[in-house]
Amino acid sequence: MTRDVVWQEFAIDKAFRAHAKGQRPCLLWFTGLSGSGKSTIASLLEQRLAAAGKHTYLLDGDNVRHGLCRDLDFTLEDRAENIRRIGEVGRLMVDAGLMTLTAFISPLRSERRIARELFTRDEFIEIFVDTPIDVCEQRDPKGLYGKARAGTIRDFTGIDSPYEQPESPELCLNTVRHSPGKCVEQILAYLILHGFVNRNAADIAER
Amino acid sequence: MTRDVVWQEFAIDKAFRAHAKGQRPCLLWFTGLSGSGKSTIASLLEQRLAAAGKHTYLLDGDNVRHGLCRDLDFTLEDRAENIRRIGEVGRLMVDAGLMTLTAFISPLRSERRIARELFTRDEFIEIFVDTPIDVCEQRDPKGLYGKARAGTIRDFTGIDSPYEQPESPELCLNTVRHSPGKCVEQILAYLILHGFVNRNAADIAER
Repeated sequence: MTRDVVWQEFAIDKAFRAHAKGQRPCLLWFTGLSGSGKSTIASLLEQRLAAAGKHTYLLDGDNVRHGLCRDLDFTLEDRAENIRRIGEVGRLMVDAGLMTLTAFISPLRSERRIARELFTRDEFIEIFVDTPIDVCEQRDPKGLYGKARAGTIRDFTGIDSPYEQPESPELCLNTVRHSPGKCVEQILAYLILHGFVNRNAADIAER
Repeated sequence: MTRDVVWQEFAIDKAFRAHAKGQRPCLLWFTGLSGSGKSTIASLLEQRLAAAGKHTYLLDGDNVRHGLCRDLDFTLEDRAENIRRIGEVGRLMVDAGLMTLTAFISPLRSERRIARELFTRDEFIEIFVDTPIDVCEQRDPKGLYGKARAGTIRDFTGIDSPYEQPESPELCLNTVRHSPGKCVEQILAYLILHGFVNRNAADIAER
C-alpha cells in the first residue's frame, strides 16, 4: 500500500462527531442552591447515560474551580465570569459531540440566559433543582450554611447573595418529594421524549 | 420492570470514558509561528484520526478566541492567560476521553511548560511546526506579516513579540522539506509507536 494516496477530505464538525458517537449532543444545565442536590443528581444521571452507551462529560466545581477558573473569586462579578466560561466550555464540549452536564449554582437569570444563547434551542436543557433554602440549610453537607450564618464566609447564595429562580426551565425537580433516583427518571423521561435517549437503552441501563 | 430497582454505581472517570471510546486520550499541542502550518496539519491529522475511528477535538483560534477567550487582548499577559485557559480546557477534554489537538502559536516556553504540567508524562505531545519566519512571511496566508511590518498590528510573534523555540518537543516537523500530508504521516508514526493508534486502523483510514 502506498503512503501517498490522495484521500477524500471530510469535515470533522459537530454533526460528524455526534454521528460517530451515535448521539445528539446537548447541555444539561443544573441550577439551584448550595446543597440542593445538583451534583448528586447530575452524577447519577451521568452514570445512567454512560450505561446507556452515551458519551458524556460533567463540569462541576471539582474540575473547574481549581483549574480553568482558579483565578476567580466569589464576588458577583467573578461569579458571572465563572458562569460565562462554563457556558463557553460547555459549548466546546457539545461541539465535540458530548452530552454535557454542568452542576453550578449559577444564581442569576442573566448569566443563565447568556449561557443558553450559546446553544441551539433544543440543545440547552435548564434543570432547576428546586430545593427550599431551609431544606438545603438543614442538609448543609459541607457545613457552608453554618459558616455563612456565622459570617465566616461571605457572598453565599441565599444568605447574603441573591438566587433568582428560573422562570421557564425545561425541567423542575422537587427533591423534597422525590429521591435523587426519581429525579433522574424524570430527566431521562424528558430525554427520551425529545429523542436524546432511546427508551430501550435507558431501560437496559437500569437493569 | 420496576423503575425502583437499585443499580450498581460505577465511576464515570477518565479511564471509563477512554475505554468507552476505545482509545487513549492525549493532548497534541502544536506550536509554531503564524503561517507555519499548525492549523493545516492539525486539521489533516484530525481527519485521519477520525477516519481511524478515534474521537477527537481541535481547539484553535476559530473556536476559542471569539468565545472562551474573547475578553483577552494580544498583550503578552493576556496571551499567557489565553494559553493557560487552553491548557485547562485541553485537560478537561482529555479527561472527557478525547484525543485533543490544540493549534496556537503559544510562543513562550514557560507557558507551554505550564500546559504540559497539567497532563501525565505520556499524555502531552508537543509538536513543533518548525517553519522559518522568512518562509512564514512569504506565505503570509492572512496578510498579517505585511500588517505587522507596516506597524498596523502590534505584538506580532516573530516581528515585535518573541517566539521561543521548544527545546525538547516530542515531534519536530519540517514544513519546508515535507508536505502537510507527510508531516501528518510523521505524527501518525509517533502515535502508532506509542500505542495511541493501531497501525491497521491508520492504514485503513488512508485508503
